[in-house]
Amino acid sequence: MKLRLINPNTSESMTEKMGLTAQEIAASGTEIISSCPDTGPESIESHFEEAVSVVGILDEIRKGEMDQTDAYILACFGDPGLYAAREVTTAPVIGIAEAAFHLATLISSRFSIVTTLGRTKIIAEHLLHRYGFNEHCRKVRAAEIPVLDLEKDDGGKTCELIISECKRARDEDEVGAIVLGCGGMADLTPVISDEIGIPVIEGVTAAVKLAESLVSLNLATSKHGDWAFPPKKCLKGYLSELSFSREIE
Amino acid sequence: MKLRLINPNTSESMTEKMGLTAQEIAASGTEIISSCPDTGPESIESHFEEAVSVVGILDEIRKGEMDQTDAYILACFGDPGLYAAREVTTAPVIGIAEAAFHLATLISSRFSIVTTLGRTKIIAEHLLHRYGFNEHCRKVRAAEIPVLDLEKDDGGKTCELIISECKRARDEDEVGAIVLGCGGMADLTPVISDEIGIPVIEGVTAAVKLAESLVSLNLATSKHGDWAFPPKKCLKGYLSELSFSREIE
Amino acid sequence: MKLRLINPNTSESMTEKMGLTAQEIAASGTEIISSCPDTGPESIESHFEEAVSVVGILDEIRKGEMDQTDAYILACFGDPGLYAAREVTTAPVIGIAEAAFHLATLISSRFSIVTTLGRTKIIAEHLLHRYGFNEHCRKVRAAEIPVLDLEKDDGGKTCELIISECKRARDEDEVGAIVLGCGGMADLTPVISDEIGIPVIEGVTAAVKLAESLVSLNLATSKHGDWAFPPKKCLKGYLSELSFSREIE
Amino acid sequence: MKLRLINPNTSESMTEKMGLTAQEIAASGTEIISSCPDTGPESIESHFEEAVSVVGILDEIRKGEMDQTDAYILACFGDPGLYAAREVTTAPVIGIAEAAFHLATLISSRFSIVTTLGRTKIIAEHLLHRYGFNEHCRKVRAAEIPVLDLEKDDGGKTCELIISECKRARDEDEVGAIVLGCGGMADLTPVISDEIGIPVIEGVTAAVKLAESLVSLNLATSKHGDWAFPPKKCLKGYLSELSFSREIE
Amino acid sequence: MKLRLINPNTSESMTEKMGLTAQEIAASGTEIISSCPDTGPESIESHFEEAVSVVGILDEIRKGEMDQTDAYILACFGDPGLYAAREVTTAPVIGIAEAAFHLATLISSRFSIVTTLGRTKIIAEHLLHRYGFNEHCRKVRAAEIPVLDLEKDDGGKTCELIISECKRARDEDEVGAIVLGCGGMADLTPVISDEIGIPVIEGVTAAVKLAESLVSLNLATSKHGDWAFPPKKCLKGYLSELSFSREIE
Amino acid sequence: MKLRLINPNTSESMTEKMGLTAQEIAASGTEIISSCPDTGPESIESHFEEAVSVVGILDEIRKGEMDQTDAYILACFGDPGLYAAREVTTAPVIGIAEAAFHLATLISSRFSIVTTLGRTKIIAEHLLHRYGFNEHCRKVRAAEIPVLDLEKDDGGKTCELIISECKRARDEDEVGAIVLGCGGMADLTPVISDEIGIPVIEGVTAAVKLAESLVSLNLATSKHGDWAFPPKKCLKGYLSELSFSREIE
Repeated sequence: MKLRLINPNTSESMTEKMGLTAQEIAASGTEIISSCPDTGPESIESHFEEAVSVVGILDEIRKGEMDQTDAYILACFGDPGLYAAREVTTAPVIGIAEAAFHLATLISSRFSIVTTLGRTKIIAEHLLHRYGFNEHCRKVRAAEIPVLDLEKDDGGKTCELIISECKRARDEDEVGAIVLGCGGMADLTPVISDEIGIPVIEGVTAAVKLAESLVSLNLATSKHGDWAFPPKKCLKGYLSELSFSREIE
Repeated sequence: MKLRLINPNTSESMTEKMGLTAQEIAASGTEIISSCPDTGPESIESHFEEAVSVVGILDEIRKGEMDQTDAYILACFGDPGLYAAREVTTAPVIGIAEAAFHLATLISSRFSIVTTLGRTKIIAEHLLHRYGFNEHCRKVRAAEIPVLDLEKDDGGKTCELIISECKRARDEDEVGAIVLGCGGMADLTPVISDEIGIPVIEGVTAAVKLAESLVSLNLATSKHGDWAFPPKKCLKGYLSELSFSREIE
Repeated sequence: MKLRLINPNTSESMTEKMGLTAQEIAASGTEIISSCPDTGPESIESHFEEAVSVVGILDEIRKGEMDQTDAYILACFGDPGLYAAREVTTAPVIGIAEAAFHLATLISSRFSIVTTLGRTKIIAEHLLHRYGFNEHCRKVRAAEIPVLDLEKDDGGKTCELIISECKRARDEDEVGAIVLGCGGMADLTPVISDEIGIPVIEGVTAAVKLAESLVSLNLATSKHGDWAFPPKKCLKGYLSELSFSREIE
Repeated sequence: MKLRLINPNTSESMTEKMGLTAQEIAASGTEIISSCPDTGPESIESHFEEAVSVVGILDEIRKGEMDQTDAYILACFGDPGLYAAREVTTAPVIGIAEAAFHLATLISSRFSIVTTLGRTKIIAEHLLHRYGFNEHCRKVRAAEIPVLDLEKDDGGKTCELIISECKRARDEDEVGAIVLGCGGMADLTPVISDEIGIPVIEGVTAAVKLAESLVSLNLATSKHGDWAFPPKKCLKGYLSELSFSREIE
Repeated sequence: MKLRLINPNTSESMTEKMGLTAQEIAASGTEIISSCPDTGPESIESHFEEAVSVVGILDEIRKGEMDQTDAYILACFGDPGLYAAREVTTAPVIGIAEAAFHLATLISSRFSIVTTLGRTKIIAEHLLHRYGFNEHCRKVRAAEIPVLDLEKDDGGKTCELIISECKRARDEDEVGAIVLGCGGMADLTPVISDEIGIPVIEGVTAAVKLAESLVSLNLATSKHGDWAFPPKKCLKGYLSELSFSREIE
Repeated sequence: MKLRLINPNTSESMTEKMGLTAQEIAASGTEIISSCPDTGPESIESHFEEAVSVVGILDEIRKGEMDQTDAYILACFGDPGLYAAREVTTAPVIGIAEAAFHLATLISSRFSIVTTLGRTKIIAEHLLHRYGFNEHCRKVRAAEIPVLDLEKDDGGKTCELIISECKRARDEDEVGAIVLGCGGMADLTPVISDEIGIPVIEGVTAAVKLAESLVSLNLATSKHGDWAFPPKKCLKGYLSELSFSREIE
């Protein structure tokens, strides 16, 4: 089975790190192909950056479609472009935020989220409502860490900030589990988990397992109704290269 | 990995059937142990039968705990005793209704349910609200089939009734996928799916994959807070044999 | 009118205490028959204990049905087995949590709950959502008292803990009333109420009044649809004694 | 116990009829005093008429307060002025819509409403949301009968229209009970109930029982917070006679 | 365009003040006619006062209807009588609370409200739910100022209290904007806004703009369905002067 | 005042048409500058097309920012890129879907939407939930018209299909108003409105008025919290031209 892990930002180190984490957890027959777009923001911490990352994401899916991809993972906690991506392929597409939420509800009645910058909390709130998990999440918290700090070698300082916030969540929020709110935290999960002592759910690994699940169940993205292929249509400008319209149908 | 599939009713044929379906879809390293209680209702089509099935379910979990079980599947669409079961083990416990709902939302924006008797629709409605999927489900439908008819050799008549209701769901409900609302339909899924032409999600197989996912992610049922082991306490009467209290802690 | 107050745990002192409280408040023509099952947990502070108490509850209803019972009260704040109980009788069945919630909304726009152990708060949260009162309840609080401490003669220490938590609710939650979250607090209500100075609603007494109300209005549990008698069916094992199936219809 | 049933419209025949229905169902020690304002609309079928009925309602409460009233019933299905009324007295105040909703949920998992004119359906919808019962009500239906037709001797024609709509609710809505959506239907309940064969809940009688319940539990309208007595203040114009301000505190 | 700003309380100074604020912000062709009823409470801080203000409001609309009014503004933050008012005219009627909420959501994802007395917070909560903005409002806060203090010359003390509460909202609530919860604060908005440094939305001015918007779009209050003119009917007592029934149709 | 109406698709005829409609309704001092991106889809009928239109939209805002724009209108009914757009400017940004919803609730208690293709209904559903209007909208309907058919000269056939669907909404949905679900219907509003006889709200004109309202109230998009300017950051590839980062701060 071939899973394409798409890092929506252009950070190659983060892409590689998430790819390794994914491959480690993947089933023996699963090949993880991790990539990031040539075009887009170097990290995603705003609606703006989410929005402008989507063209790159879709282009990665276009490439994946030429490469017999079985399922896609969108490795940014805001799940940018998720529905658009689902429209242009029959392969399952899983966002890491939704993946983490789904699994969190299976092992705890209530969870909290610890994300990066406070300004991204609204994005998580919106997703919780969209997916139906707003009652299951007690609190969205931010460690106030810029995403790219997760790539720096700072002697564990960033990790410490996350752990502190996770402890506050554990002690104050009446939750049974914590969801980490950034793909860039994927490699820190074991450390954090050890420190916190309650289940910590991280989206990249969760998404790998959900993608594998759907593929082995032979469940494809439904093409009946809402997520059918988009109508054939002309895309002007540089988007003309994003020529799904030709492949679709 | 050892998964225990617990059929909450006492029908051995249904237990065997679901066990086979589960084993077929399971990963190569996964062993499915399917069982049903000695005590309980022969099928479950009411709140009453759900309620009285729970002691048997918990007893099966007690047995599983003595047998290094990695995860449990509760194979009745009402997910009876789900939270009670989660309290008495650290192994993940997955209900087939929740499993089907979770996966359905990953491949379609809206789904409908086709269940057995109309009187059980309220149970599905309650679960949808509890889990957060009430907006994702357009309609709960019943084929008006008693559960045990699914075990009869009736030349496909029962299956035909389900297919008819699924077609109505597909054509009238504006959904991308259909969730089958009974564990006893597990073996019919391929036939139904072929006839309907849109994704059909069935809970037993979905639960196997979610259980495998959690186990391979090393995610255990949280013992912090709500689902901690129940306090040590005396159970009187025949329940005294349900002696979790002795094993716990 | 004959009301059967069923204490879902096996504590006879608590059963007697609640029976007395109920009889005191009952209308002159109302006879309270209080009972608890021979089988079940000695107190209920978890989903597990709720679940295993239900068979005993249903057996008490079976006895009640042979005794011309006019209505039933389930005297545990989690309302365990409520819908199952309603299926097996036409007599009204009232849970003490729902009873307290209903009356609380009639005398205050918002209320808080003060319950026993923190781990049971999730049960109250679930009920609030199920019944529709989640907006009316500002906060679920726990005095962190094991249920059985309510039966101990501890010189008022337990009562003091409840009163302290009630005062916090009154002063911090912007509520007009407080709901006591355990049947075992029934006899403490007058003391607590005096100390707090705002309305305190307790479920046992509330349930008596709602049960009397329904009976005198000749309103029976609907047998049309969801709560119709369960289908006649074989119950295996010790449950075979729980032979509602023979009496029903 | 002295209950004051306030008919918010000025129809004396309807007041008398509802008073009789209430007295019939009342406990032996309960005295029903039914009254309607001198000022106000002859029937209430709009937001406008609801709004202008409130001054009359409050004036009836003012009179009741001088007469040792134990509880009040607002006998119009829109529960007009309910919160205002609660502010000016410590006695419980019960609206007939809320009363019917509360009791309906105790004997059925879902109900429908059959009201008078279609234009009043939005009022019921708003109340269902306010009180938390929107999930419990499947459908608000109108028999398209002007309220005052309920006072006419038309050989049962009006009653027949209501019965027809109730039958549609019973057969199409998947409900266990029906709530009658007008105080003027109080006397028709037994006839309708006989014809329909499923529980029919009517608000006037329901409110009598809830009012009796609260009074015998010694539960008064909370004066802590939202429903405290209004601040002492000058009311200009004809409202100066509505001089609660002088009695309060 | 002729807008009638109706102050539901009888304070002439507040009426004048709001009228001036409205005129200042109004488009060049807009004439603001501000008025308050002869009858009613001198200020509105309770459900009771809201309720008794409505007859006066409706009488002002009756006058407005004889005067070619293009739209009405109800200048009390509880939007009293809003739906009743809409029934008796085809001209748009805008409440200042709804106006402020609508505009607040257009410039911030979440807002808080700072109102006068704590007891009125429940009124704002109810409106937020009714209008659909409960998720957009993080917190309803009160500066604990009686409405009429806003009319006193107290050297800015009252204004200071509001500013303090606004600052707490800004710093603690994770909001982008603040809604002022009283028409009497209209003239203070510039000062508060300057001090707070984040957008401050005030209802009177917001309502002027929404009213102008609807009028210039030729959008009238719908007379199809819920807000159709009330049925012709007799109003008894002093209400007989509120003779909309004669003009309607 | 200078308003920039951004048509997110690349159809110049539709841009011009919407620009004219907007200018007609605009206040005398308002200048409408209408534009569409060079890059993007020729029409928007899917999540995919919405997603890929956003870069073009943001580029138009970039241009607007160099041109003293007072407010922006996003003239596609899915409000694509709305929050991203708000982050990169202090000027108000109004989507035509939200604009129509806001005004619809001011003149009717419930409305229905008539949009183009059925597959876009889910987009409207999502927006209704996000904005808080899901209870106010009874039904989302589609006339099953491709967006570009609205630009064809087909002798009124397309308009006829919309009118038919609007009539069904009026007659079956119990609504007081209809929202037109496509910017391309802007010029048809008067015709449709005349035929339907109940208020018809169209988003382009609604957005012009809301934008004018915010500007004249001096209400800017809040830069406190969620919609603050995005952090300065490198955008790779062709997005490097979308250099907001340089202007911001």
